[in-house]
Amino acid sequence: MKKVIGIQGIQGSFHHLVAQQYYGEDVEILECMSFQELVRSLVAGETQEAVMAIENSIAGSILPNYALIDENDLHVVGEHYIPIAMNMMALKGQQIDQIKKVYSHPMALLQCKEFFKKYPNIKLIEDTDTAEVARRISEKQSKHVAAVASTAAASIFGLDILASDIHTKKSNSTRFLIISKTKKEPNGEKIDKASLKFELESRTGSLVSVLNIMRDFDLNMTKIQSMPIIETPWKYSFFIDITFDDYERFCKAMEVLGMMTEQLRIFGTYKNNV
Amino acid sequence: MKKVIGIQGIQGSFHHLVAQQYYGEDVEILECMSFQELVRSLVAGETQEAVMAIENSIAGSILPNYALIDENDLHVVGEHYIPIAMNMMALKGQQIDQIKKVYSHPMALLQCKEFFKKYPNIKLIEDTDTAEVARRISEKQSKHVAAVASTAAASIFGLDILASDIHTKKSNSTRFLIISKTKKEPNGEKIDKASLKFELESRTGSLVSVLNIMRDFDLNMTKIQSMPIIETPWKYSFFIDITFDDYERFCKAMEVLGMMTEQLRIFGTYKNNV
Repeated sequence: MKKVIGIQGIQGSFHHLVAQQYYGEDVEILECMSFQELVRSLVAGETQEAVMAIENSIAGSILPNYALIDENDLHVVGEHYIPIAMNMMALKGQQIDQIKKVYSHPMALLQCKEFFKKYPNIKLIEDTDTAEVARRISEKQSKHVAAVASTAAASIFGLDILASDIHTKKSNSTRFLIISKTKKEPNGEKIDKASLKFELESRTGSLVSVLNIMRDFDLNMTKIQSMPIIETPWKYSFFIDITFDDYERFCKAMEVLGMMTEQLRIFGTYKNNV
Repeated sequence: MKKVIGIQGIQGSFHHLVAQQYYGEDVEILECMSFQELVRSLVAGETQEAVMAIENSIAGSILPNYALIDENDLHVVGEHYIPIAMNMMALKGQQIDQIKKVYSHPMALLQCKEFFKKYPNIKLIEDTDTAEVARRISEKQSKHVAAVASTAAASIFGLDILASDIHTKKSNSTRFLIISKTKKEPNGEKIDKASLKFELESRTGSLVSVLNIMRDFDLNMTKIQSMPIIETPWKYSFFIDITFDDYERFCKAMEVLGMMTEQLRIFGTYKNNV
């Protein structure tokens, strides 16, 4: 039986592209129309693993997705990066000046903001998925409407690309996590990265102590983000990613961190894929 | 002549509320329909200062706004926090089950995601400003459409509140920056907070050294966020906020940091308003 992998969005979406690159063709894809649905189907056992966007180079982390992983006690078991190229597409024969509305995912619209400044008459409308809009335009043969999506979506749904590579930041890369109900432990394959979260008082000294420990154990930090905890003033959550060579030393460091911080949560250990 | 203050959005928007609380009533307000427009009018001298949302407790920082401040060589001269309460509003007499579409700012829609799960038939559509939608519904007397905005917007534009406090996170607070073309230096008033950005290689050790200096100079960190610099692998930008008691010591610490980091940019020094 083939492994079932959840993606946010449908065929032709960037999540689908990640699933193809990460797993190859020999898996079954379950299309989910929201991150909530992606997580629900994973928890319910309808999928074995799921692909979830977590950050990009313009907007930073999608923090609500960390909350979904945390609240549902899920584990990060892998990561994958892809460059995101956005294209404006519509029914064959449509010209750009005939387009009145463009539907796409909010992040896609944000990434193409500069481009659309040149077209103040085009209304930008938020939608759940980039490829889904392309499918709808194709199915309903909707005129005067365009999607912003991948070239794969244009080719799957037979749309014309009116403008290609319309995203502002040309070296824009998006990071996706592979999530699962079960933890990944070293088992022949290399495990050299971890994602974690902990809480600390806001004194600079307390974070320095934690980072000193990380340095002493040869952990290299690739990401840090603090978030104030509204309910407890002067307390912060820290979201941290680290890479390491020695899994045993990483485990020891986590024991020490568990004593130095509050609410330490290791989202997962996995293979660094940068 | 009254000071002219730029806000993103129109009367009744959360930015307007911040302007009222921060400046009182004795200022003129210039409504701007995007953050780009807010910055353009400030740079052009059409406003003396501007109010700009910068982070909230669900989605984190609005990183593109830091880029706007940076690229236009603007300065942070103040900050203001307000709790954000979202309400669904429509023409008088409309019932919630008559509503087919809800327009609002993407962040407002995100904050009310849980609430709208109960109404799968309502289509959520991204718009530029929370209050602007309320104004449009009122002007055009649009039925079957609702806005998600502040109670102030409902009362200014004479709409009925169909559901109040529909945001998920009840202790949700949003931080706004006050930005200007000119730097703020101590001048009788207290200056005890700064926002800065610098670049570093990704070794944990280099960040620890910077934080050690900050601790040695009694700087207290209230925010840290790293962002990979795509063009130069293994290099990161760090966005940091710090509070301090002694402005002179802060200045000395910045001299040291200037030598230890690359591209140090002090966005501004201002009064801590937490």
